Amino acid sequence: MSPFRASAPITGAWRHFEFTVDDGVGTLTFTRPEKLNALTFDVYADLRDLIGELPHRGDVRVLVISGQGRGFCSGGDVEEIIGELQRMETAQLLEFTRMTGAVVKALRETPIPVIAAVNGVAAGAGSVLALASDFRLLAESAKFAFLFTKVGLAGADMGSAYLLPRLVGLGRATELLMLGEQVPATRAEAIGLATRVVPDAELAAETTALARRLADGPALAYSTTKVLLTRELDSDLGGAIELEAITQALLMTARDHREFYAAWSAGRRPQWTGR
Amino acid sequence: MSPFRASAPITGAWRHFEFTVDDGVGTLTFTRPEKLNALTFDVYADLRDLIGELPHRGDVRVLVISGQGRGFCSGGDVEEIIGELQRMETAQLLEFTRMTGAVVKALRETPIPVIAAVNGVAAGAGSVLALASDFRLLAESAKFAFLFTKVGLAGADMGSAYLLPRLVGLGRATELLMLGEQVPATRAEAIGLATRVVPDAELAAETTALARRLADGPALAYSTTKVLLTRELDSDLGGAIELEAITQALLMTARDHREFYAAWSAGRRPQWTGR
Amino acid sequence: MSPFRASAPITGAWRHFEFTVDDGVGTLTFTRPEKLNALTFDVYADLRDLIGELPHRGDVRVLVISGQGRGFCSGGDVEEIIGELQRMETAQLLEFTRMTGAVVKALRETPIPVIAAVNGVAAGAGSVLALASDFRLLAESAKFAFLFTKVGLAGADMGSAYLLPRLVGLGRATELLMLGEQVPATRAEAIGLATRVVPDAELAAETTALARRLADGPALAYSTTKVLLTRELDSDLGGAIELEAITQALLMTARDHREFYAAWSAGRRPQWTGR
Repeated sequence: MSPFRASAPITGAWRHFEFTVDDGVGTLTFTRPEKLNALTFDVYADLRDLIGELPHRGDVRVLVISGQGRGFCSGGDVEEIIGELQRMETAQLLEFTRMTGAVVKALRETPIPVIAAVNGVAAGAGSVLALASDFRLLAESAKFAFLFTKVGLAGADMGSAYLLPRLVGLGRATELLMLGEQVPATRAEAIGLATRVVPDAELAAETTALARRLADGPALAYSTTKVLLTRELDSDLGGAIELEAITQALLMTARDHREFYAAWSAGRRPQWTGR
Repeated sequence: MSPFRASAPITGAWRHFEFTVDDGVGTLTFTRPEKLNALTFDVYADLRDLIGELPHRGDVRVLVISGQGRGFCSGGDVEEIIGELQRMETAQLLEFTRMTGAVVKALRETPIPVIAAVNGVAAGAGSVLALASDFRLLAESAKFAFLFTKVGLAGADMGSAYLLPRLVGLGRATELLMLGEQVPATRAEAIGLATRVVPDAELAAETTALARRLADGPALAYSTTKVLLTRELDSDLGGAIELEAITQALLMTARDHREFYAAWSAGRRPQWTGR
Repeated sequence: MSPFRASAPITGAWRHFEFTVDDGVGTLTFTRPEKLNALTFDVYADLRDLIGELPHRGDVRVLVISGQGRGFCSGGDVEEIIGELQRMETAQLLEFTRMTGAVVKALRETPIPVIAAVNGVAAGAGSVLALASDFRLLAESAKFAFLFTKVGLAGADMGSAYLLPRLVGLGRATELLMLGEQVPATRAEAIGLATRVVPDAELAAETTALARRLADGPALAYSTTKVLLTRELDSDLGGAIELEAITQALLMTARDHREFYAAWSAGRRPQWTGR
C-alpha cells in the first residue's frame, strides 16, 4: 500500500464487477453478460471508487478493463438507470451525471495506464469508458456506438465531446457523436479510435501480453508519459515544454534510467524496477 | 419566432443568395454559378446576418449550404473583393476581415447543425465555409483548395488555421494551408476533411436525407452536441466534463429523453419533438 | 541582416553541424554519419542558437534539416549524453532538459518554415526534431521511433507529448510515445506524421524543390501561416479568428498581395518578393 494513505481503508471487495490483481496487472471485468454488461448506479460508483483507490494500493501498475460474454459494455441499463432517472429531481440528476463524469476524469488522471479489451459492443457510456482508456485493443467483431442522441440525450456525455475530437478529429467526432451510428472495428482502426484490431480468439492473449509488458517494464516512465499526455492536451506550447523538461530531469535521477545505462554499458538487458 | 426577440425585425428577403425553409430545414444556395459562386461583400454581410438570425427565427433546425451550378463556392471574387481591397485603408481592411471571421464564428457557435453540400470546387473562403460546417458531404468531383497563399495572403483566414489542424492534424493542415494545393474528394475523406463522399448524382438526395434526419430527430440533443463540441475544443478536461454533466442533467429533464423511455417501455418508436 | 540587431554578433561558424545558405534556403546537415548523427551537448546548443539567430540574419526564408549518411538523427548519444547525465546533479539535469526543449520551442516559434528531410532513422530526440518541423519529407526507408521509454525515461520529451497528439491524435500518440516502437514511412504517412514519402533516391531533389518553392514564393504569407498555426493551437475560437482578421488585414497592405492583383489584372504570373 502507498505510504501516503492514512485513516481511509482500502476497499476489500468490489461487489459490482470482478477485480483481480496478478503481479502488477489489475483486471476489472464486467459481470452482467446477459445484459451485455449494461451499467447500473452501483457499477458506476464502484468504477469511480476503484479507479480512485488504484494508485494508493501499490500493487497495480496497469489496469485492464474487459467484459464477460459477447459484449464489452452496452452503457447505462435502460431499466435500471434510464427508468430511474425519470423519477429523479434536478439535483439528483446532476449528482448522477457528475458521478459518471468522475469515472472518466479518474481514468484520464490516474497515473496508471489503462487497457480496454473490447471484445464486442462498446455502446453509450461503454464506448466512453473505452475512449478514456489509454489503449483500445479491439476484437474484429467489436464495434463502437456513441448512441446518446438515440435516447434523446446530448452526444456529449462523460467527456466524449472533449475526448473524441482529440482522437479522430473534429469532423469525424461530430459525425459519430451527433448521429450515434455504429463504428465497426476496421473503421475504428482506420480513424485512430482503435489502437489495434486482432482476431477475436487472440484478444485475451494480446491483452495479457500488452499488460505484462507495461507492468514489467519501466513503469514510472510509462506512468509519467500518460500523465503528461493528459495534462498537455490542456497546456500551451511553452508550458508543455517546461513540464516535460522538469519531468524528464526528475526521471533522469530515477532508478530505471540509471539501470538502462548500466545495462547498456555491460551489454545486457535492463532489469526494470519501475522506480 | 423566438420569444426572446424584441424590437429588431427578422430580415424578410435575402438578396444575395437564395434562402428557403422547408419543414425545419433551411437551405442557403449561392446563386452566382457563372462565377463558381464567388463571394462579394454583400454575400458575406448576408451570411453573417442570416446565421446570426437563424436561432431567433424558430423555424430552422438544420441549415444546408449549397451552390448552384458546377461549384460550391470559389471564395472571394477577385474583381469585386480583391480589386476593391487595393483601394481601402487599414481600418476598412480590418472591418472586412473581421466580417469574414464573424461568419465562421457564427457558423461554429450557432446551436443549429450545418451541412455543407459540396458539389464542386470549394476554394479560399469557400473552403473555410465548408470547414466551419458540421457535416461536409462531398460529390466525387468536389475538391478543396485553401489557396490563400497563392494570392499572397496568409493561409490563416477566417479561422482556417484554428479549424483545419483540429480536423486533419497539424502536419496535414500545415501542408494544405501553406501550399494551397487542391485536395480531391477521396483525399478529403481519407484525412477526415469530408464527412462522406457520394456519387455526384446522389449528393442532393443524400443531403436532403441527412437534413431531414436532423430536423425530424431529437433536435435539442443534436444542437447541444454541436455546441459542446465547439466549446470543448477550448476547454480543459475538468471543465469539459463538468459542462457535459450539467448539460446532460438538463437534457434528462427535457421532453425527448422522457419520450425515448416512454416509447422504449411501450415497444414503439419515439416521436421526437426536438424539445 | 535584420535592422533590429544591435550589439550581439551573428555567429560566424557553426562547429557542430554544417550550415550553408543558398539564395534564401538555409541547410543544416548533421555530420556524424558514423553515429547515425547522434546528438551531443554541443549540437543541441548550436541548434538552439542557430534557430534563434535565423530570423535576424535576413538571408534565410526556409530552413532544411537533414543528416549525412544512412540516418537522419538517432537522438542523444548514449555515451556522450546519457553517460554524462549519470554524473550530473539536479540543477544541471534541468539545465540540459530545458536546453533540449528550447530547441523545439525555437523550431515551432521561428517565423521561418522548416523542412525535415528524413533520409533514414529519426529516433528519440531526432524524431522530435522532425516532429517540430513544418514539413516532414520521408525517404521510403525512413522510420520514426520515439524510443524514450526504452531508456527508462518519459515518452514526453522536448514537447513530444504536446506535438504528437496534435498531429496523429491522442490514441496513436499514446501508443507511439508509451511503447516506443518503430513507425515505418508508410505508416507515418497514413497517420499524418509524414507530409510525403518519396523514393530514397528522390528525397534530395524533392526537398530542394519544396525549399525553393517556399523561398521563391510569397514568403511573408508562408511565414505568417506558420506562426498562426503555432499560436492557434493554444488559442480559443474567438481569439484565433481575431488574430487571423488582424493578420490578414496587415498582409492586405503588403507588397505581395498587391503584386498578385497587379499580375492577375495584367494576365501575367506574380513576381513575389516575400514582402
